[in-house]
Amino acid sequence: MPLKNDRFLKALMREPVDVTPVWMMRQAGRYLPEYRATRKQAGNFMNLCQSPELACEVTLQPLRRYPFDAAILFSDILTIPDAMGQGLYFEEGEGPRFRKVIRSESDVEQLPEIKTEKDLTYVTDAVVLIRRELNGSVPLIGFSGSPWTLATYMIEGGGSKDFRVAKEFMYNNSEAMHLLLDKLADAVIDYLNSQIRAGAQAVQIFDTWGGILTTTNYLDYSLAYMKKIVANLISENEGRSVPIILFTKNGGLWLEPIAASGADAVGLDWTIEIGKARERIGERCALQGNMDPSILYASPQAIHAEVGNILASFGNGNGHVFNLGHGITPEVNPDHVSAFVDAVHELSEQYHS
Amino acid sequence: MPLKNDRFLKALMREPVDVTPVWMMRQAGRYLPEYRATRKQAGNFMNLCQSPELACEVTLQPLRRYPFDAAILFSDILTIPDAMGQGLYFEEGEGPRFRKVIRSESDVEQLPEIKTEKDLTYVTDAVVLIRRELNGSVPLIGFSGSPWTLATYMIEGGGSKDFRVAKEFMYNNSEAMHLLLDKLADAVIDYLNSQIRAGAQAVQIFDTWGGILTTTNYLDYSLAYMKKIVANLISENEGRSVPIILFTKNGGLWLEPIAASGADAVGLDWTIEIGKARERIGERCALQGNMDPSILYASPQAIHAEVGNILASFGNGNGHVFNLGHGITPEVNPDHVSAFVDAVHELSEQYHS
Repeated sequence: MPLKNDRFLKALMREPVDVTPVWMMRQAGRYLPEYRATRKQAGNFMNLCQSPELACEVTLQPLRRYPFDAAILFSDILTIPDAMGQGLYFEEGEGPRFRKVIRSESDVEQLPEIKTEKDLTYVTDAVVLIRRELNGSVPLIGFSGSPWTLATYMIEGGGSKDFRVAKEFMYNNSEAMHLLLDKLADAVIDYLNSQIRAGAQAVQIFDTWGGILTTTNYLDYSLAYMKKIVANLISENEGRSVPIILFTKNGGLWLEPIAASGADAVGLDWTIEIGKARERIGERCALQGNMDPSILYASPQAIHAEVGNILASFGNGNGHVFNLGHGITPEVNPDHVSAFVDAVHELSEQYHS
Repeated sequence: MPLKNDRFLKALMREPVDVTPVWMMRQAGRYLPEYRATRKQAGNFMNLCQSPELACEVTLQPLRRYPFDAAILFSDILTIPDAMGQGLYFEEGEGPRFRKVIRSESDVEQLPEIKTEKDLTYVTDAVVLIRRELNGSVPLIGFSGSPWTLATYMIEGGGSKDFRVAKEFMYNNSEAMHLLLDKLADAVIDYLNSQIRAGAQAVQIFDTWGGILTTTNYLDYSLAYMKKIVANLISENEGRSVPIILFTKNGGLWLEPIAASGADAVGLDWTIEIGKARERIGERCALQGNMDPSILYASPQAIHAEVGNILASFGNGNGHVFNLGHGITPEVNPDHVSAFVDAVHELSEQYHS
């Protein structure tokens, strides 16, 4: 089944496209009433992630409403630590929590090696199902959390404001931290390659918490392990490249080393001007981003104008995938998402003549 | 009374010093048992801020333990909105809250103009008292929150994770937001000038939340108002310059416009290498920072080594005030602060020959 719309994959490889492709982080999410209904039906969030049928359903929901140029697998970034036995759960209205936490070198040593094909089959089953249902309409993005980001949750036992425990562990148990990150990198490689074999046509690594580190620590504890992952992913499948997107929130200071990681595209948050980012690394990588998700609370006119600003900042030529600078938030009016997606397609044509 | 130790003021003006001066954001704070005792005595946090005697006491406490090169007025960044009638209060273990919030243009219009000399005398009284007690040992830093940062709290009604309400207000009520920021800028000018007249020998503007904005919005909604403040502060008092430090957390992408604001020094968080920052703006401004506060959880040896890394990154010459990249956290062992301060003085001598 040839892809009917491959703008997204082309843009990631910096090939010409007719209009700028667009998708949205957390596009399958709580801002959609149909998502909330399916989640309610699932009983809880983990059931939703672990049911390939329901994960497929919520993956497809936003595509029924909006002309997004890619689907992204619905899952959680913490499936790997959960499969390692850490006991992921969600309290209503709270972030993720783990029943077990990593607090010592022996905790790290005791972590089991996991294999996606036996420990996370619900994920690859969902990928297969989604690809079948997409039926070649748009490509499917697979994803994983970065080793550093996964490690912060495993050590803290959940989210954190200042990452005190994770940083303390890093500073005082540097070797154990590196061992943990290396184990996680190996698991992520297997996880993403399994997603690719199951049908993911591009992959994104979410380094949500790399931006809380010093430059040196970012390079040593986060980027180094993402580089290992990038170097070990399947680069071609179904006869075409499988592009890799690397997204570090608050990573604007480190674009050059991120671009040198081997990834095909760099995800940008909204704090950097995309034109400036293009000057710095646009010859080496595609860029993805980077509208402030909060603009979606503004009027459709304001959204339209801001899309125009970002397209103008990037300018003419190839290598731009439009996205938000971070995930859409639950309170956004779904009509505003229409305004956003339509503006990208409508206003970007002039930059691709 | 001539200053016995004026390293801090000299370094801010990029004049030669014997060793790199050091102070610490939130140096008068909960990591000190004597602070916790005084706070308990005060009953609550607002009482502590509003009693010049107790504010003076906690300002001096860290100087009795450590050879810091500056004192910083103990106060809260939200005194101005409180004086405007917003009703600041603190719940135990929570951040600041306001009884009233700003949600409309008329809320902004109704905000009273305040004057420090009649509405915030507890602050200037504390400054006078602290200067008397310091008796010329080290200079005293006055401070204020930035207009943008104050506005976020006033609109949200407290702290926030994603600043949804404040950003929504900015995007949908741009004129009212500018009016609010301008009113706050005027109040901050009067507030800081009053602190200077009362005896503050340098001032710092804390732009804690500027870093959540896009570049354009940062320039328009945060930096523009800090520039107005900088342009209107008393530049000389007691026969010497009153340096201004501007600190935007997560402002590493915007160092050049910050350095062009007219401030004498730029505060850096820990995400940027200070050597890189010096290459970018070191000819125009002094730099203040920038150790990750979390390093204070590591061993004294690790703290010593990290201080050495930062000093080496800055290199030889003038214009560095050592500090953390953000405030010290309550759980830090006070002995580790000794290791930090001593390391700065001991290891920096070689860079000032």
